[in-house]
Amino acid sequence: MMEYEVKIRTGNLDPVRERLAALGIAAARGITERDQYFNSPSRDFGVTDEALRIRSAGEEMTLTYKGPKLGLGGLKAREELIVPVGEGEILGEILLRLGFTRTAMVVKRREMYRVEGAWVALDEVEGLGPFVEIEAPAGMAGPEAVSLISRVREKLSIEGEETTLSYLELILATR
Amino acid sequence: MMEYEVKIRTGNLDPVRERLAALGIAAARGITERDQYFNSPSRDFGVTDEALRIRSAGEEMTLTYKGPKLGLGGLKAREELIVPVGEGEILGEILLRLGFTRTAMVVKRREMYRVEGAWVALDEVEGLGPFVEIEAPAGMAGPEAVSLISRVREKLSIEGEETTLSYLELILATR
Repeated sequence: MMEYEVKIRTGNLDPVRERLAALGIAAARGITERDQYFNSPSRDFGVTDEALRIRSAGEEMTLTYKGPKLGLGGLKAREELIVPVGEGEILGEILLRLGFTRTAMVVKRREMYRVEGAWVALDEVEGLGPFVEIEAPAGMAGPEAVSLISRVREKLSIEGEETTLSYLELILATR
Repeated sequence: MMEYEVKIRTGNLDPVRERLAALGIAAARGITERDQYFNSPSRDFGVTDEALRIRSAGEEMTLTYKGPKLGLGGLKAREELIVPVGEGEILGEILLRLGFTRTAMVVKRREMYRVEGAWVALDEVEGLGPFVEIEAPAGMAGPEAVSLISRVREKLSIEGEETTLSYLELILATR
């Protein structure tokens, strides 16, 4: 499954929240996500541009693999495989036994909104600040995804600079 | 968590079933288990004596890591880490993306009985035939586990030869 999204570094999430409220769109959910990233013993994911993480979001835990990013202008596209897991801590132990190493933890408060079928996330990322992500629905083809994302961004008048870097890369760059 | 168990190659499971019936012990469950084993890109589990598998048993799916076996006479002891997973096929895809390779599939029909707190499994393994496994309950210390297992074996009068090899190793040896 390909993931298409744009990430925008914003100074402030409030104007976006106000715009959503004016459009009558309520948050579908608000949750703190804790993402533990791992690196592989057989190749450096920092070089191959892959990612492996265990996400804990409330009661839900998932293992996610992300393939190398494909640039599409300011848009980020990459393969994403996600599987729900029962116990994130034990899975973390298994990864360590297999030779994987913990790289960094990314913690963010995330509010999710559904806008024209796209997912809009208002993120407050620990150590990085506020961001907005707009993601096309799963299964949508590239050109459609690009046009939907730009339409949603315009509709919500989101100010700020696009980045194709992941939160993990941005966190590692601050070190 | 350490796993302590004995595996016995039996010609026929019926005498054990009859003995269990005579003791008034009914099967706790009967299910077909399909175990897909993987090898690592960074070391050969055949050499390090580790194992990584995705088990599918009815609706339940788990990821299991097993550490090197420690011989205790005919008994097998090894570290075992198990985590429930939502979708075994996607997890298999993630492992392939991470460079792991599929080694073998082990399929068995397994009946489980609880005897004096131990788990007794009557296994009909595709390509290998019938086996009985007796496993000490999770968390039991080594010496206790050894004596419980030998008591249960005697109680059920299980005939046959013990092996400390895993089903995976036995399957690979037939190739």
